[in-house]
Amino acid sequence: MTDQNNETVQALQWMGTYLRVLDQRQLPDTLSYDVYHDAKGVAEAIVTMRVRGAPAIGIAAAYGVALSVSQHYLNATDDWQQKVAEDIALLAKSRPTAVNLFWALAQMEAVLAQTSENLVVACVACAEKIHADDIIANRRMGELGADVLAAAKGVMTHCNAGALATGGYGTALGVIRSAVSRQPLNVYAGETRPWLQGARLTVWELAQDHIPVTLLADSAAAWLMKSGAIDWIIVGADRIAANGDTANKVGTYSLAILAKQHGVKLMVVAPTTTIDWTIETGEHIEIEHRHSNELLPTCYNTAGSLVSAWNPVFDVTPAEFISAIVTERGVVLNPTECRMREIRDVI
Amino acid sequence: MTDQNNETVQALQWMGTYLRVLDQRQLPDTLSYDVYHDAKGVAEAIVTMRVRGAPAIGIAAAYGVALSVSQHYLNATDDWQQKVAEDIALLAKSRPTAVNLFWALAQMEAVLAQTSENLVVACVACAEKIHADDIIANRRMGELGADVLAAAKGVMTHCNAGALATGGYGTALGVIRSAVSRQPLNVYAGETRPWLQGARLTVWELAQDHIPVTLLADSAAAWLMKSGAIDWIIVGADRIAANGDTANKVGTYSLAILAKQHGVKLMVVAPTTTIDWTIETGEHIEIEHRHSNELLPTCYNTAGSLVSAWNPVFDVTPAEFISAIVTERGVVLNPTECRMREIRDVI
Repeated sequence: MTDQNNETVQALQWMGTYLRVLDQRQLPDTLSYDVYHDAKGVAEAIVTMRVRGAPAIGIAAAYGVALSVSQHYLNATDDWQQKVAEDIALLAKSRPTAVNLFWALAQMEAVLAQTSENLVVACVACAEKIHADDIIANRRMGELGADVLAAAKGVMTHCNAGALATGGYGTALGVIRSAVSRQPLNVYAGETRPWLQGARLTVWELAQDHIPVTLLADSAAAWLMKSGAIDWIIVGADRIAANGDTANKVGTYSLAILAKQHGVKLMVVAPTTTIDWTIETGEHIEIEHRHSNELLPTCYNTAGSLVSAWNPVFDVTPAEFISAIVTERGVVLNPTECRMREIRDVI
Repeated sequence: MTDQNNETVQALQWMGTYLRVLDQRQLPDTLSYDVYHDAKGVAEAIVTMRVRGAPAIGIAAAYGVALSVSQHYLNATDDWQQKVAEDIALLAKSRPTAVNLFWALAQMEAVLAQTSENLVVACVACAEKIHADDIIANRRMGELGADVLAAAKGVMTHCNAGALATGGYGTALGVIRSAVSRQPLNVYAGETRPWLQGARLTVWELAQDHIPVTLLADSAAAWLMKSGAIDWIIVGADRIAANGDTANKVGTYSLAILAKQHGVKLMVVAPTTTIDWTIETGEHIEIEHRHSNELLPTCYNTAGSLVSAWNPVFDVTPAEFISAIVTERGVVLNPTECRMREIRDVI
């Protein structure tokens, strides 16, 4: 997947009139792309986690709106606007936590509101710009994050905040890519239950780029930290509140506490599109709970079973546990509401 | 598996001349027993984790020695003592961390050294006594632990320290059984990667006893604690040092730190046969690392793979993180070397 121009795997590929989506559920065993010609399909791809990761969800949704406009506007029915609005509503409810989804849909709605001619062209152009800007942001964050890591010898990441979760290059894995290009770095990945994004996606993606990586059980992370093997935990984010509180894959909050106990630092890497300036703290972030069948043996997925499951797939890490939030506009060290505001006001 | 006499499942069943072992690898889908007529078979059952859990490993090893004596002594060859010694050595190297294994083998060696006639009968009697004493100890610990829990509303356990891991009734799950018999208690179980003892064994065992249980991903435990749902973490132990430092399933150390952060208490439940008085602190406990194929997708289990795994299956929790160690001889609150000594000197 990696060519000599140092392009990372592309989970989302816009083909001019349709969207190709890498089916991440089948990795690392099978590399398979699905093709989507309408918004309903894109929403389904998000719901079923063929595509996941906050920035990638936003980009896919933007292409979904472009496909909707293309389908309904070009059919020139009287109610095309209503049909597009329905598609946008469908996309909006595909996943609840990642704010990039709502940000991207708002961007597309702004185009719809302002453009009178060449509507399809304008929508496609907006979606492609969201996609391209995300890759540019990731490369910028990669360099900024690598600067912060300085002489770190070992890092651990959680979930997959890589090329697969973004437009390309990745957020947390973008920093790791940039750092590895500068100096040797031992990279550890938590397997990330229940969906095993670490074991299936992160190690695959790093291996594609010829970066050695060591996988561990999530609950072994504290023992790894105690061994002194890592200096930083590096993660992405699904939504960041105005004060720096960060929602990310469940287990991040756990890692944050364990890191503080061991003198390990926590870096959150996310584009500013992941920041939800409308909420003051992380308490207001909706946390998605997914189906118990992601955890339970099949025999317990029955009515009246004495065995149930509690399956929140995100948690919120208070800003006080975060040493650095790396965005494409700059790095916020020891984030507070005040320090976050400086990033907001950067042009 | 549970009859009306409140007997819990029996993972080890001595049938007079052979040992029946519940193959825990197949739970919860299949309830299947294997039959062992010699020590080699018992050692293999431990190595392959058909039987696991520190007390159960000790009991199985004791029966293994009884089978060895039965086989070689009754054959009346000149070198029967050497063959028994070889079998004991084989059993001793089946797993490195659980001290109950070495304690049980020492018990059997003492019988061999002291008994001149009816050797087989004496060995079988010793193994049966080790087994019976373990169940008695577990029932006693269950009551003592339930006293300590007092008015707790919710508890979480990790791995499987139940009837399946012991002679019967369980250590951590024994306390939960006793507590539930007194008052309502919300019980949570971590799934316990990589072997999923929680998801496969603990929830099955509790459901057999009609105790409702909620399963969660290991890395969701901190988020559960933050919700206020649990008052105690209750776990077993594989080896406890003289100062109270406790080796247990990997992830216990992580839970201990997270518990302290959230004002949740940690209870370790283990018979005194799990205490290794010969080591002052947990630093001296050998931690077993198991094969990377427990974590890695198959495609990475190849020579030269860029993806490797770090798979310690135990960790050590410092005594300072433990609120109570519950043994059959009494409860040690806030364990220190001095307080542990009081338990050692109880007759």
